[in-house]
Amino acid sequence: MLVVMDKNATAEQIERVVRAIESRGYTARPIPGGDRVSIGILNNAGPVDPALFAGMPGVKDAIAVTRPYKLVSREIQPSDTLIQVGHVTIGQGHLTIMGGPCAIESEQQAMTIAEHVKTGGGHLFRGGAFKPRTSPYTFQGMGLEGLKIMAKVRDTFDMPVVTEVMDSETFDMVEEYADIVQIGTRNMQNFSLLKRAGQSRRPVMLKRGMSATLEEWLMAAEYILAGGNRNVILCERGVRTFVRHSRNTLDLSVVPVILKESHLPIIVDPSHAAGVRDQVLPLSRASVAAGAHGLMVEVHHQPDQALSDGAQSLYPEQFATLCRQAHQMHAMLQE
Amino acid sequence: MLVVMDKNATAEQIERVVRAIESRGYTARPIPGGDRVSIGILNNAGPVDPALFAGMPGVKDAIAVTRPYKLVSREIQPSDTLIQVGHVTIGQGHLTIMGGPCAIESEQQAMTIAEHVKTGGGHLFRGGAFKPRTSPYTFQGMGLEGLKIMAKVRDTFDMPVVTEVMDSETFDMVEEYADIVQIGTRNMQNFSLLKRAGQSRRPVMLKRGMSATLEEWLMAAEYILAGGNRNVILCERGVRTFVRHSRNTLDLSVVPVILKESHLPIIVDPSHAAGVRDQVLPLSRASVAAGAHGLMVEVHHQPDQALSDGAQSLYPEQFATLCRQAHQMHAMLQE
Amino acid sequence: MLVVMDKNATAEQIERVVRAIESRGYTARPIPGGDRVSIGILNNAGPVDPALFAGMPGVKDAIAVTRPYKLVSREIQPSDTLIQVGHVTIGQGHLTIMGGPCAIESEQQAMTIAEHVKTGGGHLFRGGAFKPRTSPYTFQGMGLEGLKIMAKVRDTFDMPVVTEVMDSETFDMVEEYADIVQIGTRNMQNFSLLKRAGQSRRPVMLKRGMSATLEEWLMAAEYILAGGNRNVILCERGVRTFVRHSRNTLDLSVVPVILKESHLPIIVDPSHAAGVRDQVLPLSRASVAAGAHGLMVEVHHQPDQALSDGAQSLYPEQFATLCRQAHQMHAMLQE
Amino acid sequence: MLVVMDKNATAEQIERVVRAIESRGYTARPIPGGDRVSIGILNNAGPVDPALFAGMPGVKDAIAVTRPYKLVSREIQPSDTLIQVGHVTIGQGHLTIMGGPCAIESEQQAMTIAEHVKTGGGHLFRGGAFKPRTSPYTFQGMGLEGLKIMAKVRDTFDMPVVTEVMDSETFDMVEEYADIVQIGTRNMQNFSLLKRAGQSRRPVMLKRGMSATLEEWLMAAEYILAGGNRNVILCERGVRTFVRHSRNTLDLSVVPVILKESHLPIIVDPSHAAGVRDQVLPLSRASVAAGAHGLMVEVHHQPDQALSDGAQSLYPEQFATLCRQAHQMHAMLQE
Repeated sequence: MLVVMDKNATAEQIERVVRAIESRGYTARPIPGGDRVSIGILNNAGPVDPALFAGMPGVKDAIAVTRPYKLVSREIQPSDTLIQVGHVTIGQGHLTIMGGPCAIESEQQAMTIAEHVKTGGGHLFRGGAFKPRTSPYTFQGMGLEGLKIMAKVRDTFDMPVVTEVMDSETFDMVEEYADIVQIGTRNMQNFSLLKRAGQSRRPVMLKRGMSATLEEWLMAAEYILAGGNRNVILCERGVRTFVRHSRNTLDLSVVPVILKESHLPIIVDPSHAAGVRDQVLPLSRASVAAGAHGLMVEVHHQPDQALSDGAQSLYPEQFATLCRQAHQMHAMLQE
Repeated sequence: MLVVMDKNATAEQIERVVRAIESRGYTARPIPGGDRVSIGILNNAGPVDPALFAGMPGVKDAIAVTRPYKLVSREIQPSDTLIQVGHVTIGQGHLTIMGGPCAIESEQQAMTIAEHVKTGGGHLFRGGAFKPRTSPYTFQGMGLEGLKIMAKVRDTFDMPVVTEVMDSETFDMVEEYADIVQIGTRNMQNFSLLKRAGQSRRPVMLKRGMSATLEEWLMAAEYILAGGNRNVILCERGVRTFVRHSRNTLDLSVVPVILKESHLPIIVDPSHAAGVRDQVLPLSRASVAAGAHGLMVEVHHQPDQALSDGAQSLYPEQFATLCRQAHQMHAMLQE
Repeated sequence: MLVVMDKNATAEQIERVVRAIESRGYTARPIPGGDRVSIGILNNAGPVDPALFAGMPGVKDAIAVTRPYKLVSREIQPSDTLIQVGHVTIGQGHLTIMGGPCAIESEQQAMTIAEHVKTGGGHLFRGGAFKPRTSPYTFQGMGLEGLKIMAKVRDTFDMPVVTEVMDSETFDMVEEYADIVQIGTRNMQNFSLLKRAGQSRRPVMLKRGMSATLEEWLMAAEYILAGGNRNVILCERGVRTFVRHSRNTLDLSVVPVILKESHLPIIVDPSHAAGVRDQVLPLSRASVAAGAHGLMVEVHHQPDQALSDGAQSLYPEQFATLCRQAHQMHAMLQE
Repeated sequence: MLVVMDKNATAEQIERVVRAIESRGYTARPIPGGDRVSIGILNNAGPVDPALFAGMPGVKDAIAVTRPYKLVSREIQPSDTLIQVGHVTIGQGHLTIMGGPCAIESEQQAMTIAEHVKTGGGHLFRGGAFKPRTSPYTFQGMGLEGLKIMAKVRDTFDMPVVTEVMDSETFDMVEEYADIVQIGTRNMQNFSLLKRAGQSRRPVMLKRGMSATLEEWLMAAEYILAGGNRNVILCERGVRTFVRHSRNTLDLSVVPVILKESHLPIIVDPSHAAGVRDQVLPLSRASVAAGAHGLMVEVHHQPDQALSDGAQSLYPEQFATLCRQAHQMHAMLQE
């Protein structure tokens, strides 16, 4: 933390900031500059809140110098985290593709799509049993019944399954059936849920919030690691911007930054970023080319009939093309 | 909903869209235009998801024409909702000011600040007992003990209190002590929590999500009303933009739009929008001038010592100025 | 500037950064911290580009500490700039209201509206002769003829006029007829135009770019001041965000920040921020309440017939209400 | 255009909208719906401004149904535009890589880098002679001298060159030396410059504005085509968002959308999107994978010494890697 004083800050104002720093147990180191004084804060165990000093008299700015995250940081753990789910390994050196419908609608629908995912080249089956929906009047998912269908998919096709958990009340239930528990975009900073996920025995896929900074996202993951669960997969799914030709704007620059800052695996969900089918294949290729460890895409055999998000679901043959192209790209990058 | 076809869409593609519309029980009304056909969707009971049609062959666009919200809409209920909390009325014609610290830190701190809020001209006391914090390593609030302190504030100063609830597990507890239960920005689309709030006997203050559209915000409120609780107060607190001179960008245009679209009261929290003290007074005045029904601001007698958000907390004398100016402005607008 | 090194940066990497700083004539001051070294840059005459160091090996971050602007800064000139245009003074302590149509469409239209602006309480007449239009196929303004009409408005109603200049080629012409020359949003970083404006004998109103940061905006003004023209009026007109209920999001927090950072007058254009008439009056009041020195609003006696931006133009009687309320608010703040 | 009326709009209000539509020479087609009337607008030659109707009494919304662009649209010209520059073809089926320094700093610098670009696998040499700089106090480019150096590069290495033009005054000069004339981000809606570019005999590379929508960008290109110059190359370079880990957010979803909506070539500039070197290679690969027709990247042999944008410039060996990987990816996609 660097506290930058006004050009005409008085000695008393500087002294007051120094005392405020020291009263919190940190070390204050004034740095006289060309035309103003700055004060460095040292020996802070955890992150320091810039807001603590930004409002004091004579202070022009308070600038965070170090990152607030610890356990998720590559500075703490240089080696990549690899996550094992059944016979699938997720992380550096691997490309993991997860496919399936937005929502589980029936056993027949799930089994049909799962077969397409399997034969198309997918490694995991995704599907929603508890669905966060903008409107209280639309289909909210099949709940427990949906989870049971997913378990059947896993057993039938020998494919691990990933599904979303929406609250702590149903966490036990979801954890029982899912191989990977997903925390959705809208819950990225549901801290109660993150704490529960920290106690889970399942790997957790943490989707980036709609307008989350890199730091907020990693701090959300930090909650899970701090709770004792080190198996976190990050999932970029587009952020909200002024752009209107796609539902969200996929932020692929986050992929190399995560690879540098953190040891956790990072995958990309192009379906929710795009919102329309036509963009999913190009964005999937782009994600792998940017270095992502995997993809999560929506697939439906009858997208016109889907109860949710049909417009962004790939047809099975498109999914097969995606798997083929993604693996080709990934192989090229491993050379 | 209007489904706009490509210029060169075939008759078969048009027919397929018509069938898709009718298969969902709606009426399809093709509208031949100058150089392309559009298809109106009629007789839909609830909202229709544009995504259902946007991805079909020959479709250029699917445009939502009507609003998806019902119970929160002024089209359904033309008269303003007024919410009574103790002897305080919140809504059209009233200006309600809520002040207090970001977090309850001790009984002494709370009582000291509450006295300043009361004498400064505030109507409600705000304070956090359960704090959503970006970092797992920072102060998370006093919990139940904090709630009890708030109850004591209410009894001592005869001022209703508002505090945040973070999850369903602690909802009963918060509800027992708070006069208004606040759902925070990061939980605006925590649909499980919204459903629980729908069953609450307390008025709920619903803060706007960091990047929520008007529609998403009103639909979140719709969850609470649909659950049976009609006492919802909306709270604008700034949205996330590229701007860096304030923590968030206060969106005051939302105030007249809410007044037009909904019958629910709308208040503004300029403290979280600004992030720094200097902007709070101007933005408070601006909020009242824009037509807001109230303000929620952070006040602290020793902001340098605050455990959270000190930089944005007003000094007690600033809060008194704010109350005076806000009431003057409000009176002027009532003339 | 503070260059923050990686935790495990080598002595050689640190030395290399020091040399790079010194090779540019600055002073490097290494600051050993708890677990990493930072290097302060001192004695730089102008701003230092963080990008110069951010990409060097071993560098974690390069953080600008001081502001890059000089002439526009209140640190350089503490007293407010007041701008005199005819008998109108613009700046601290005054409230200046500019009204008129988006585009000059005919002499009759201009004279009719000007009369409404005058009697309604406006101080300046605004109108476009050269119109920046998104589409090449829509009305582009009356050009020279429009300027002549504006001159006639000034003479008839004894009201100074403000109009936009779009390029250096027509600058002489606009300067001849206008009392204030406006540089539009889309040209905020048209640096050739800014340089020309720096040589103008007219005050310049510089609108904020659609997605300009505070710093970019002030640096654009700095171009004009550096060119020799100290009479610059800043005009906030909304920024582009994800929000869809208004055309742009009016950023009123910029008003107190400009008042603190700069000595230049700041006015607000709520019409372009809103895009629809209903929001203009509330946002106008909010702007004055936030401390703006003036307003620029669109007025039209027949908005349904306007050749551009009719939907956001006030009816004359609305403009009169706006003037009355704005002056009341301003008077209250002067007390 | 579809004008959506309020639920309780009166017959008179509907009639007034119909008359307003017809008074502009369009056809009005009222569409009675379930609970409200909408009015379609037909037989409009060009685009209709929604704002014309959005503010009328009884109108809830005015929704643009068709796209406002014509000449740039694939609906008008289904076949891809291919642009020939010397022996280089730009457009569908080709991958064109442009490399070079941000700014031309000296003949020696330019020739050194150009040799690296040529041997690394680049097709065009880029470099700035006129530099748009945020600050008036930083290096503004070598001007004419820089252009002459670029011409020498072209002759020496048989490589076409691309450089930016900042205003109409210097357009003739730039056009004389450049093979492709670039219009920069900050000038995307400098309509005077676009009109001049429409009369140019050179292909124009039009960078996307910092916060331009797809529509605004294509309409800016429409200005150039409408002026008579059909050789326009679009260049995505990142948009401004809340994100802070990259300078801008590269919007790769725009690539497939442009490919669908327009016949013009689209290339990507990952250097300005990233702002830091580490992200350039992953984003370059991602751009090609998304379907872009080319890349424009910054290269410098001594980035620490560069007068501008050194942090985002690739080292020559990184550029060679980029060319190799990009061509591999492009070849894979052509299969």
